[in-house]
Amino acid sequence: MIKGSNQEKHEIKTIFERFLEPRSIAIVGASQSEGRFGNTIIRNLTKLNFKGRIYAVNPQVEDILGFKAYPSIRDIPEPVDLAIFIIKADRIPDILEECIEKDIHSAIILSSGFEEIGGKGNALQEKVLEIAERGEIRILGPNTTGILNARYGFTTGFAPLNELKEGSVSFVVQSGIFAGMMYIWISSVQNFGIGKVIGLGNKCDIHEADALEYLMDDTETKVIVMYLEGIKDGRRFFNLAKRSTKVKPLLVLKSGTTQAGSVAALSHTGTIAGNDKIFDAVCKQIGITRLSGFDDLIDITKVFALQRLPEGNRVAVVTVTGAGGVVATDRCVSSGLRMAEPSPATVKKIKEVIVDWASVNNPIDIPRGVHVGDITTVYRVVFRALLEDEGVDALLFNLFMGEGFTFDVELFYDRGYASKPLVLSLCGEKYLIEDATSKLESRGIPVYNSVDRAVKSLSAITLYAQRRRMGKNIFD
Amino acid sequence: MIKGSNQEKHEIKTIFERFLEPRSIAIVGASQSEGRFGNTIIRNLTKLNFKGRIYAVNPQVEDILGFKAYPSIRDIPEPVDLAIFIIKADRIPDILEECIEKDIHSAIILSSGFEEIGGKGNALQEKVLEIAERGEIRILGPNTTGILNARYGFTTGFAPLNELKEGSVSFVVQSGIFAGMMYIWISSVQNFGIGKVIGLGNKCDIHEADALEYLMDDTETKVIVMYLEGIKDGRRFFNLAKRSTKVKPLLVLKSGTTQAGSVAALSHTGTIAGNDKIFDAVCKQIGITRLSGFDDLIDITKVFALQRLPEGNRVAVVTVTGAGGVVATDRCVSSGLRMAEPSPATVKKIKEVIVDWASVNNPIDIPRGVHVGDITTVYRVVFRALLEDEGVDALLFNLFMGEGFTFDVELFYDRGYASKPLVLSLCGEKYLIEDATSKLESRGIPVYNSVDRAVKSLSAITLYAQRRRMGKNIFD
Repeated sequence: MIKGSNQEKHEIKTIFERFLEPRSIAIVGASQSEGRFGNTIIRNLTKLNFKGRIYAVNPQVEDILGFKAYPSIRDIPEPVDLAIFIIKADRIPDILEECIEKDIHSAIILSSGFEEIGGKGNALQEKVLEIAERGEIRILGPNTTGILNARYGFTTGFAPLNELKEGSVSFVVQSGIFAGMMYIWISSVQNFGIGKVIGLGNKCDIHEADALEYLMDDTETKVIVMYLEGIKDGRRFFNLAKRSTKVKPLLVLKSGTTQAGSVAALSHTGTIAGNDKIFDAVCKQIGITRLSGFDDLIDITKVFALQRLPEGNRVAVVTVTGAGGVVATDRCVSSGLRMAEPSPATVKKIKEVIVDWASVNNPIDIPRGVHVGDITTVYRVVFRALLEDEGVDALLFNLFMGEGFTFDVELFYDRGYASKPLVLSLCGEKYLIEDATSKLESRGIPVYNSVDRAVKSLSAITLYAQRRRMGKNIFD
Repeated sequence: MIKGSNQEKHEIKTIFERFLEPRSIAIVGASQSEGRFGNTIIRNLTKLNFKGRIYAVNPQVEDILGFKAYPSIRDIPEPVDLAIFIIKADRIPDILEECIEKDIHSAIILSSGFEEIGGKGNALQEKVLEIAERGEIRILGPNTTGILNARYGFTTGFAPLNELKEGSVSFVVQSGIFAGMMYIWISSVQNFGIGKVIGLGNKCDIHEADALEYLMDDTETKVIVMYLEGIKDGRRFFNLAKRSTKVKPLLVLKSGTTQAGSVAALSHTGTIAGNDKIFDAVCKQIGITRLSGFDDLIDITKVFALQRLPEGNRVAVVTVTGAGGVVATDRCVSSGLRMAEPSPATVKKIKEVIVDWASVNNPIDIPRGVHVGDITTVYRVVFRALLEDEGVDALLFNLFMGEGFTFDVELFYDRGYASKPLVLSLCGEKYLIEDATSKLESRGIPVYNSVDRAVKSLSAITLYAQRRRMGKNIFD
């Protein structure tokens, strides 16, 4: 194994399968004490019905949560695919030597106390790396919460988890704790599922380019989202990204963009952040969707997870408030979208369901009071007309739900023939909005609580789609 | 009355008191049919225990929801402070003539069909204005939902309302429907209260400068928020704004910033949007807080509604995830804040509650696992140390709540002596976050669900406070 060189595809696949779907794991530092990380990990795996075999390693006890505890890794009677370390940092080198004896080739080091603290932490990380290279052990971490693989029921995270909402978005994150907490937050409030999470930590061995090379060919992953504080091997990363964005979206939140931020990143995971302007320019050139913060990370990920790509940038905005229409128009135009011009046929169809003094432009302003017929029917007619209009590539509905002013969201399920993405901006009575959101998103229609966010998301998939269509010419 | 000239203060006050706290109103177009606007308005007033007298005007019926219906305004036996029109636009001039006979000097025209539709709508609006000037009637609208005054239980809005959450934020909005819907949305999901809402509509008479002149001296209003598509009398508006920002924050969301957006604004309320760059420069100069969209309108309004102003721009960021700390740092620095340098005394106090290998910088990274003692105690010690640190002007805590990882939010209630604003970014299990948010915000501590939004809000109050401190020198 030569670190950092181009891995053969099957090799990357094998390496990550040991991290993501290990048939057997050894938990070095497993604990009987509830609340300790070495205990929560095992509880999580039990709750998630982890399919592999679990070997607890702890010389002081007989068993942990029903699993026999082995004094050392060497005492485990069967082969081990993956060693997981959750012990004090300075004890790790010795046990890594035992991994060599035991013929283990993958390890996740959850423990902190390495490069991120400087000084002796640097020396310790060097030593770990030396042993790993000698023993051909691939290392994830240190200073991470490691892996989460929803489909396989596997996680090394130590935030208590109850269930995993399986999906097709995979995350690569510098910070493991962030990954665990973000996972709980997304599962708790969002309706899109997460496939795999790879927490890199200090990246002493495995880094973002490795993870990208694996995920770009992973058929279970449709969208790749990365949180990075720096990039270890820029050339390899961008070469892979260039190929990756041709087959699936790659969303990157890169922090450490300011001087102070890069100092914080250094102390967080020992990372050099690099020049942000160059990074930004390269992203634009090769079709990486850059996220500006955690809001983007949820909002934009959601639209990529749920929606199809538009065939052009002409948007029709339907709005229940004039103000929403004006703000949406400003934001569409300033973020690379164009306001579609509804065809005469579309205008005719819409005019049949609104009062005769109301005009039909785009934004299509349909406040309460201009309807002819019930709200659901009016929206349905407008929706269908726009779906059939060849001059419209994408749809944004900015609607309201309150008592005495609701509609049946099922009107939006009928999307049959058209390949036009639809996003909704909904506000109003909280309980009505939450119910509608969960129904709509379970059918693949993303809902936001402001036109700001709805437009931002539509813009992101549109720009990506544009670049991808041009891809053959400009990316190579 | 000379329209557009400088009104005497008491005159502006009298005019707006008739709109906001009328002792008696005539509803022209009151309706027996549930769901009609002329019906919902009366239902709303009944539910809100409106303190004034209600006169329904409708020649076709005897009574409406228990109120005697009068054939015309002239038949009302007592004086009327305010006439509210919710009838077809072309019938309004005649009834406005009746208002002159009846000695009514204030009218809200909710009806649409005026300048915003062009053509005959323009002529109709001209006619209305001519009658109003002749009869010394001040007009709000047309094409608006008018007024909401929580403390007085008064609204002319036709979105069904159940209760009003009284507060000290007052809104001036171009679009009345937007106002009503936004009101329900904010009441439904936010913990800050709304005082007065003034919906301008087409602004044939009363416009944003009038509303600003009233609200800047209104003791019940602590924060003024405006949604504008254009400004009618720029010179007067900015002169008032310059004085207003010295005594209370003025937040402005101005749309129609793009060519397409300004076309949409024209069709929405017949407004000319003007040059956005000039507007932006003037806002900066005179201390108007400019909002970029609906998210800002809620996030930034909240921090002004709940928090005190910081005395400087040095922020301490406490974070449970390293990633959150790095992103927060980037955003603080790029939005005009400075990362505070914790004093040696502060560092000493914090080091007593975290493990010895963890370092204390800013962001102060306190992930799970570095605590000595329970989470609440650790956070409390850190919080108090930062409150006492003279090198810190404002606090941002980026925290997580999940099962097995909660803390008692009451630790933040103890803010006694210090005049340091505090904002929280919270994510995790939804039910825990919602509970914590409602507790914290009821005590004046704003909660956001991302550090992005928390920093944005802290930056807004900090920049406003800076400008206000400098105010005497640069604003005059």
